[in-house]
Amino acid sequence: MAVQGFKPVTLKARRVTVLGSTGSVGCNTVAMLERDIDQYEIEALTARANVKLLAEQARRLKPKIAVVSDVSRYQDLKIELAGSGVEAAAGIEAVVEAASLPTDWVMAAIVGTAGLAPTLTAIQHGGVVALANKECLVSAGSLFTKEVKKYDTDLLPVDSEHNGIFQVFDFKHPEGVEKIVLTASGGPFRSMSRQQMRDVTPEQAVAHPNWDMGRKISIDSATMMNKGLEIIEAFHLFPVKQQQIEIVVHPQSVVHSMVAYRDGSVLAQLGIPDMRVPIAFTLAWPNRVSVPVRRLDLAKLGKLTFEAPSEGLFPALRLAREVLLEGGSAPAVMNAANEIAVEGFLDRRIGFLEIVEIVEQTLNKLQVPKADTIEEISEIDKLARKFAKALLPG
Amino acid sequence: MAVQGFKPVTLKARRVTVLGSTGSVGCNTVAMLERDIDQYEIEALTARANVKLLAEQARRLKPKIAVVSDVSRYQDLKIELAGSGVEAAAGIEAVVEAASLPTDWVMAAIVGTAGLAPTLTAIQHGGVVALANKECLVSAGSLFTKEVKKYDTDLLPVDSEHNGIFQVFDFKHPEGVEKIVLTASGGPFRSMSRQQMRDVTPEQAVAHPNWDMGRKISIDSATMMNKGLEIIEAFHLFPVKQQQIEIVVHPQSVVHSMVAYRDGSVLAQLGIPDMRVPIAFTLAWPNRVSVPVRRLDLAKLGKLTFEAPSEGLFPALRLAREVLLEGGSAPAVMNAANEIAVEGFLDRRIGFLEIVEIVEQTLNKLQVPKADTIEEISEIDKLARKFAKALLPG
Repeated sequence: MAVQGFKPVTLKARRVTVLGSTGSVGCNTVAMLERDIDQYEIEALTARANVKLLAEQARRLKPKIAVVSDVSRYQDLKIELAGSGVEAAAGIEAVVEAASLPTDWVMAAIVGTAGLAPTLTAIQHGGVVALANKECLVSAGSLFTKEVKKYDTDLLPVDSEHNGIFQVFDFKHPEGVEKIVLTASGGPFRSMSRQQMRDVTPEQAVAHPNWDMGRKISIDSATMMNKGLEIIEAFHLFPVKQQQIEIVVHPQSVVHSMVAYRDGSVLAQLGIPDMRVPIAFTLAWPNRVSVPVRRLDLAKLGKLTFEAPSEGLFPALRLAREVLLEGGSAPAVMNAANEIAVEGFLDRRIGFLEIVEIVEQTLNKLQVPKADTIEEISEIDKLARKFAKALLPG
Repeated sequence: MAVQGFKPVTLKARRVTVLGSTGSVGCNTVAMLERDIDQYEIEALTARANVKLLAEQARRLKPKIAVVSDVSRYQDLKIELAGSGVEAAAGIEAVVEAASLPTDWVMAAIVGTAGLAPTLTAIQHGGVVALANKECLVSAGSLFTKEVKKYDTDLLPVDSEHNGIFQVFDFKHPEGVEKIVLTASGGPFRSMSRQQMRDVTPEQAVAHPNWDMGRKISIDSATMMNKGLEIIEAFHLFPVKQQQIEIVVHPQSVVHSMVAYRDGSVLAQLGIPDMRVPIAFTLAWPNRVSVPVRRLDLAKLGKLTFEAPSEGLFPALRLAREVLLEGGSAPAVMNAANEIAVEGFLDRRIGFLEIVEIVEQTLNKLQVPKADTIEEISEIDKLARKFAKALLPG
């Protein structure tokens, strides 16, 4: 709907860096920056290996530097950027250095444990950090939240559920919060029995009903491990206890999440499932910019449905709560083992139900030490992967 | 759910007045104050005529003064209060005087145009005014909002829809708001044709599906005039234009209302329908107190449904938008004529569809002058009632 009488927000020209610009969240972020490119000074774009796309983005956004993490791609990047005026760099240390450039806003969208060091560096330089990397909070939550506090960084979650909670959580009066409610699509198998789940194929599992996601996260949605990881993230993002985090299955993924207050009020954030909405939220916060996404039309939608989740059907939910209570590096082990198990399922080496079984077995077998640094966490991550791999057949 | 680790809020002992303490909102407010009576100093309780209940409340809450508006009940009130130590007073001016006592929080819950002067007085003394009276904003919206601004009063709406919007409206960045969405139960006749509505009885009309309300407001819900009046209230409460106020029919009355932002986010306030929730919200704001109401359980509820409202079936919605655009005292005329027409329907002098017809005829016949004072608005209110009465048969 057109709004008369209000001028669009003019953001101050802001220094911006995108860590992981060629992934799904990164590309959406680049597109959003490009739309209002005169509002921003782009400091750095970084990617793992896709130098072609990285160079294309760099030619359009004119960052000071473009960095490819994979050093073997350095020459290719230089060739792609020739004559663009954009400096090229390569290597993990160069990514961390890019993350340390002075900025007002950093999108931390590097996937996996590779995101830990650059994101931590960005956090230690203050400003606003939009967090799209899961591992920072799942595997190293205590470390990250300590640094966020120390450097007074504004850590804004990009994940739609946590972003939704962030929008309706009263941080000034957290004692008024009774619980937070994470919604879960329930994945494609929520109406199946365990017996039926035993035989599902990777093709069935990656067909997510609402979000267009990568294969790994689609499998995590099908096992509900995704929601388990989100419980851990929520625990670190918001001042609540584990038992104050509730899950409700909501197949339409329209209500992105909720906060229930002790006066009986429940505040919710809703919208069509589109990652541009939370990305734009973090970019404009505390303002709001116009985003050209389809508007939510509840009358057209007709209904929203809700169900209680079954921990019996989805043991990943129970596991997540257990590792959260155990603390230390248990969540890092769970996350690493899960990645290996999902790969094993996608490679048809194990069945669907064995994904979470392998995670649980890894957790049971591995003595998890305390881990206080990224190096220690990375070590444990590697160890957990090794353990989990050994559990795969063949 | 029990929350560990958080202490309950201790509100500073606050000076509190309840205008209209014996009505439905007033009684709920008194009950809430009584629960934590050591937190408050009760300044005044006022009622129209129910001296028995007023005196009972006064004996429990120990206000400095209890006022009955109907002067003929003064002796009765004195007798009821004998020995209680609570001062008795009577008359409209005494109610206004009670409203002028220094307080931190006033519940303005006097029903009808009788609420205008005392509520305005409370507003002119600053602090927080919880507004449960509809007429202040419907009939005298411009006057009231001017005074709210002038005296920097925090006007907190008690009506569940507006209270819900208040909870999720970003007053610091109103330019980010695209529209507000008022939910409407749709009343008991939303699935009927106009032809079927023609024959409904007062008994059918007062049977509201979700809220336990008075007869007048139940009829307003059935004609959707209630929602029309709420459009006008919302226009004055929030910095939006008439065309930014949307209605969606939501028969379960769980989503109390929503704010849609220009980034595609929609924030909503939900809860079971219970007036204690918004009352407690205004009392504790910006904190939140525990309220012993049933918690919202979406999984148990199963689904929430939404429909577009029909202006063809419910012309009150169109009328409300028209009087809002016309401005001046047109909303006051609409409100007054509606009260008379509803009485006519309850007395079986007119049919259900004629309620809104009489309102429209009154609006068409009466030249509505500008009204800048409560006295002028009260005059127009009387005039509109006279006109509307003349349109009733018999």
